Amino acid sequence: MSRMLAELLEAIAPVDGQSAHAARQRHDSLAKPPGSLGQLEGLGVQLASIAARCPPPVPASPALIVAAGDHGVHAEEVTPWPQQVTAAIAGAICAGGAASSVLAKRVGATVDVLDVGVAADLPAHPRLVDAKVRHGTRNLLHEDAMSDDEAMAAIEAGAQLARTRLDAGADLLVTGDMGIANTTASACLIGAITGAGADVVTGRGTGIDDGMLAHKSRVVAAAIERHGSSVDPRRTLPALGGLEHAALVGVILAGAGRRVPIVLDGVIADAAAVIAVAMQADVAGYLVAGHQSVEPGAAIALKHLGLDALLDLDLRLGEGTGALLAVPLVQSAAAVLADMALLDDVAG
Amino acid sequence: MSRMLAELLEAIAPVDGQSAHAARQRHDSLAKPPGSLGQLEGLGVQLASIAARCPPPVPASPALIVAAGDHGVHAEEVTPWPQQVTAAIAGAICAGGAASSVLAKRVGATVDVLDVGVAADLPAHPRLVDAKVRHGTRNLLHEDAMSDDEAMAAIEAGAQLARTRLDAGADLLVTGDMGIANTTASACLIGAITGAGADVVTGRGTGIDDGMLAHKSRVVAAAIERHGSSVDPRRTLPALGGLEHAALVGVILAGAGRRVPIVLDGVIADAAAVIAVAMQADVAGYLVAGHQSVEPGAAIALKHLGLDALLDLDLRLGEGTGALLAVPLVQSAAAVLADMALLDDVAG
Repeated sequence: MSRMLAELLEAIAPVDGQSAHAARQRHDSLAKPPGSLGQLEGLGVQLASIAARCPPPVPASPALIVAAGDHGVHAEEVTPWPQQVTAAIAGAICAGGAASSVLAKRVGATVDVLDVGVAADLPAHPRLVDAKVRHGTRNLLHEDAMSDDEAMAAIEAGAQLARTRLDAGADLLVTGDMGIANTTASACLIGAITGAGADVVTGRGTGIDDGMLAHKSRVVAAAIERHGSSVDPRRTLPALGGLEHAALVGVILAGAGRRVPIVLDGVIADAAAVIAVAMQADVAGYLVAGHQSVEPGAAIALKHLGLDALLDLDLRLGEGTGALLAVPLVQSAAAVLADMALLDDVAG
Repeated sequence: MSRMLAELLEAIAPVDGQSAHAARQRHDSLAKPPGSLGQLEGLGVQLASIAARCPPPVPASPALIVAAGDHGVHAEEVTPWPQQVTAAIAGAICAGGAASSVLAKRVGATVDVLDVGVAADLPAHPRLVDAKVRHGTRNLLHEDAMSDDEAMAAIEAGAQLARTRLDAGADLLVTGDMGIANTTASACLIGAITGAGADVVTGRGTGIDDGMLAHKSRVVAAAIERHGSSVDPRRTLPALGGLEHAALVGVILAGAGRRVPIVLDGVIADAAAVIAVAMQADVAGYLVAGHQSVEPGAAIALKHLGLDALLDLDLRLGEGTGALLAVPLVQSAAAVLADMALLDDVAG
């Protein structure tokens, strides 16, 4: 294991149970029936445990990091989209015209596109962070998608960018991804770590027919079979993952190390979270599931992580869109704990 | 039927199918896989049909109207909360310390507490609109909760306040309610109009035990029985409703008449919407279900209305909290239609 990864993992402490307890008590004393704010109360308690403070601070400066990469498994025809779309949408995110650009603007989030593995060379842009490890992964069906060193380089790039954003004042990390064929790699990662079968973790991505789905599922099954039954995340990530998964692992580990909440987008982020939590179990306490992706692997990953999604809007776009839509809920959960009156003061 | 109500109903036109069609086409041409934004796309299409414009304007000025009233059926012990809580929480909403106050501030919504029927006399406050019709309804178990004239007066108060807010620049109406025992009246309204049985529309409100729930369900059944099988909403509303339901009917009708989206909160707003749509079917097109309340009647009402809730966070607080949490989703749905790039422009 690299020294860099060891340091990332060592920096992570458990969330604070005492602050969680204080937040639970505070919720029961606010001017409302106990429990009547449902999942928002649990989220507020979690935010208190993350910040080790009750009430927790209201996140005001979200930072979206869209990790981008291409996939050798694209050659297996697991998607109808050409690989060039990865670069095109990465460009659109930089230019401000992508879905994630629009939603990031709504919540005042900074946007960085982190190129760790796009197959094309992207033109320079203020929102583009060039940390390319390789031009797309190898074909995970036949060989490991990347070397250990390549995985570590992508993890480091993600961690580095997250820290840069946190140093600049960000107080909430939002994960995004862009990479044609990355639901295939996500299904492999989730299947390999959780033990769920290829048939239940494989989904239609952004839209494939029954024939392509059956083929994709066979590819996922064969890849997991090739990898074998090891559940060491340090082995599974380079064998089956994407460079953007590795980068998101870095984002997640860095955020947890700095005691900042990390809002997960869909199945790609969920797969990265499964890897990160397998590396260090305390990470789970820092994760917020922004939404329930329609990809079946997402539900399996979130259950494995013990997370309830905040939104369930049938989204399957990626780029961080579902996580961005959940940001106001995270802020609201903190705000009610901070700003509501006590029942005793109201009842007079 | 009063002239006022007739005018409210006549002002309502169907939502615009042509703008909906244009929005659907635009969504399919944006820089993302068609349909990949799921429910947000349908919401954007609805907003276009409401505004009769594609892309629709992004709502920027939400107005929360919290209709408040007390209930004669409180005497039947359908809730553990004393009636005084209605006034106490109405005061907290005015003072800024209630859950809805905090959430309204997050989305920049104006807040009005509309007193159409609180049993106590509320102290004057800039956020309080005094339009009291009576000090609480009569006991709906034994007699009609209000007279026709009283129902009309409350409808008019709601419509008037909504119009005042719209005239002042509001472009999104958000419904809220406060009234101890109002889930009982809501269950009665929903049961009477939809035909669903008391046992399936009656819920635990803000928290009652099995014994009280069984009793509450019997009260609802007997009240619906007393009312008879008429499904004329002009009869059902005064017979079984609350003054805050009537006020929300006025808010909904006025909003639909002005072609403004109305975000419904929980089961009280859902019950008012069932009445409003029974009066004028075109109203349904203007309604957005902010969240899925845990009250069982809410699911029945939303199904009856053909609405899918945006959020499902196990909320059961009322005051407009669930609707306020959904406001950023409504704004985002409009923003993606307005601001995203076209796929053709991105693919280059």
